[in-house]
Amino acid sequence: MQKILNIQLQILKYILRWDLIILPVAVGIGSMVALFLWLLNLAIHYRFAHPWLLYLLPLAGVSIHFLYKMYGSSAERGNNLIIDEIHEPGAGVPKRMAPLILLTTVITHLFGGSAGREGTAVQIGGSIANFFAGLFRMDLAQRQTLLTAGIAAGFGAVFGTPLTGTVFAMEVLTVGRIQYRAFFPCLIAAFLGDATVAAWHVHHTPYHIDVINTAATYYSYHFWFDPVLLLKVMISSVLFGFASILFEKATHSIKQYSLKLIKTAWLIPVLGGCLIILLTLIIGKPDYLSLGVDAEYPGAVTIVSSFHQGGAHFFSWLWKLVYTAITLGTGFKGGEVTPLFYIGSTLGNTLAVLMDAPVSLFAALGFIAVFSGATKTPIACTIMGMELFGPDHAVLFAVACFIAYLCSGSNGIYSAQRKPGGKLSYLQSFRSK
Amino acid sequence: MQKILNIQLQILKYILRWDLIILPVAVGIGSMVALFLWLLNLAIHYRFAHPWLLYLLPLAGVSIHFLYKMYGSSAERGNNLIIDEIHEPGAGVPKRMAPLILLTTVITHLFGGSAGREGTAVQIGGSIANFFAGLFRMDLAQRQTLLTAGIAAGFGAVFGTPLTGTVFAMEVLTVGRIQYRAFFPCLIAAFLGDATVAAWHVHHTPYHIDVINTAATYYSYHFWFDPVLLLKVMISSVLFGFASILFEKATHSIKQYSLKLIKTAWLIPVLGGCLIILLTLIIGKPDYLSLGVDAEYPGAVTIVSSFHQGGAHFFSWLWKLVYTAITLGTGFKGGEVTPLFYIGSTLGNTLAVLMDAPVSLFAALGFIAVFSGATKTPIACTIMGMELFGPDHAVLFAVACFIAYLCSGSNGIYSAQRKPGGKLSYLQSFRSK
Repeated sequence: MQKILNIQLQILKYILRWDLIILPVAVGIGSMVALFLWLLNLAIHYRFAHPWLLYLLPLAGVSIHFLYKMYGSSAERGNNLIIDEIHEPGAGVPKRMAPLILLTTVITHLFGGSAGREGTAVQIGGSIANFFAGLFRMDLAQRQTLLTAGIAAGFGAVFGTPLTGTVFAMEVLTVGRIQYRAFFPCLIAAFLGDATVAAWHVHHTPYHIDVINTAATYYSYHFWFDPVLLLKVMISSVLFGFASILFEKATHSIKQYSLKLIKTAWLIPVLGGCLIILLTLIIGKPDYLSLGVDAEYPGAVTIVSSFHQGGAHFFSWLWKLVYTAITLGTGFKGGEVTPLFYIGSTLGNTLAVLMDAPVSLFAALGFIAVFSGATKTPIACTIMGMELFGPDHAVLFAVACFIAYLCSGSNGIYSAQRKPGGKLSYLQSFRSK
Repeated sequence: MQKILNIQLQILKYILRWDLIILPVAVGIGSMVALFLWLLNLAIHYRFAHPWLLYLLPLAGVSIHFLYKMYGSSAERGNNLIIDEIHEPGAGVPKRMAPLILLTTVITHLFGGSAGREGTAVQIGGSIANFFAGLFRMDLAQRQTLLTAGIAAGFGAVFGTPLTGTVFAMEVLTVGRIQYRAFFPCLIAAFLGDATVAAWHVHHTPYHIDVINTAATYYSYHFWFDPVLLLKVMISSVLFGFASILFEKATHSIKQYSLKLIKTAWLIPVLGGCLIILLTLIIGKPDYLSLGVDAEYPGAVTIVSSFHQGGAHFFSWLWKLVYTAITLGTGFKGGEVTPLFYIGSTLGNTLAVLMDAPVSLFAALGFIAVFSGATKTPIACTIMGMELFGPDHAVLFAVACFIAYLCSGSNGIYSAQRKPGGKLSYLQSFRSK
């Protein structure tokens, strides 16, 4: 009994200590994420008002290139550097990573590059967490925990989904597994990070799924859950998984081939920028530029519009995929997640129309499932579904996220993720079983 | 590309094959769970109408004892046998486990023993899954997967929470970790099991949390989330964790000491039955007998009543803990989970009154958190919170479940759970950090 009480006291001390440690870290991360979201919004709407800025995109790419060349050092490796630091602490995460990624992401969006936000938020989180770890003179184990909490705070803050941020940080480090070690610091960090953004009066986009009757009657048999709907969800989820492979392969290939074919490094973003301009001239509308959440003009295809019938074109998802792969593959900065949301929700829209299924539900499923396949975080994505769209369709969220995860191949967008035989042995087990 | 398509095809084959395998297994489990829930309800209401049945409880205990002595063999080890079979496949799970546990659980409840349902459902699931594994001539790896899916189907069916059943089955096997290996078969099994129960028109009890304003203003500062409420939740969660230790220790000690002190084995349930009768005569009311979900008379303390102000007494949680520890510690049959829900929700009620907090919210937190501490499944319990009570308080659910898990010591109620350094190294890490 004495021993148990002793352990309890230590746990209480642990909880209180981490609360105090996380408080300044998370408020710092949340504030910087709020600043980022505010600037990003300004940049996006400034470009809406001045569409000619797109023609400066190649120039913007060159400036990003030289900013990283001059100040970047290891910061260029972004999210992968942070994941590596958590697995095998080394030189640490440079302080300058936070302002650099913030600035270059805003530049990318100001001139119309197609990118996201989560990479930026995660890097802000990791960089600030690493700074505080030095300040508090932490040992390696504590530094790992604080870096993980930094990811949670950044992710939770940027999307307004604290629980998803918590689970994402624990789940993204290793494929096929989730460990609870850092849960408590992560939760507090994500929660405080999100609260800090709210305190700065920066708001998130709300999404809604229409009310759907998931019960069904066939030949006078009543099903509590429509089996045909479930089948449609499963087929779509396989395709969501394929879309995340395609995204990963496209980004990776563009990066590799451009490095191989173009010897003058700063010409790569110039070419990337020119390609984006060319594509936009060919399509004749700017829908697939930048973030894709707010509409540049009434009727533009955005994530929000894809939740409604007719809110996306048949190949919107492919266009966004190409735009983003070019933008990120040629050295522009930003996250992958919001484009993944866009690709998923527009693909969901297309599939819903093809299969005569509820549009808003399938847009929501694509939103989380393509992301799940690309980052290998099916539990975080299921929880994100519940946090963003409510729990009514939790079972379908889980089905979509796990099938997409299974069908997304063995490489995600973060090459630093560890794969402890998990994913591989999983694939092998399909053969033996 | 060829290679990727090849893998995708194998995955599709895997999904289709498991769908076909799971279908009869889950419908079988769901039907037997439905029969169990129907009989249980009959037994409970029959005792309500004939309260004198309680005096036959010692006799019921003797009959359960001899039933297991004659037909039981290894089935007596219950849930632990199934967990062991999944980790190290051996002699298999006996077919007779399902009818035996069903019959003896109904006997326990008919005569007023305080026990639950999930153990019964999980054993029905494991036993039927093992039967089908033999029928399909499965190899060891497939048998493990099907047994895990059997747990998911049983759990999902008995509480009407398929997603919780899925995650519970993956999470309960090993402390401090969750692996995705069996996810797909588990999900399909839990989902079909639950649907089968619904198809038999057996319904589950709905619970509601009152609408609560979790924002707060202090000294003219507005908090998106009330920090005082969060603090109250954290303090309560530590106590929920303590309650689950107390439950585990009490049940374990009663089992051990009665085996040591009473040499004639069939006298143990007689003594247990007599103690329950004595306690009930002392308290003067039957509130802590049996399941504790339906009310025996208007104003009885039940799980449902504990969601309302005044719906539980100060020590209701302790009484239920003592009743259940005696019932299960002296050889009566049934699960632990519904009593854990009862202990948690009444303790939550008491703490809410003490700390001037929202009663229904704290009853819900106790409901899931004591269970989380006792079974070491914080993610499943967080998801159960969302499935049963809606997602509004998901963050608080996660906080409560993980803190209770952290504060619940290193032993859960299932001694067969593996502890791969996870929990232990966790506790050690509190010291070093």
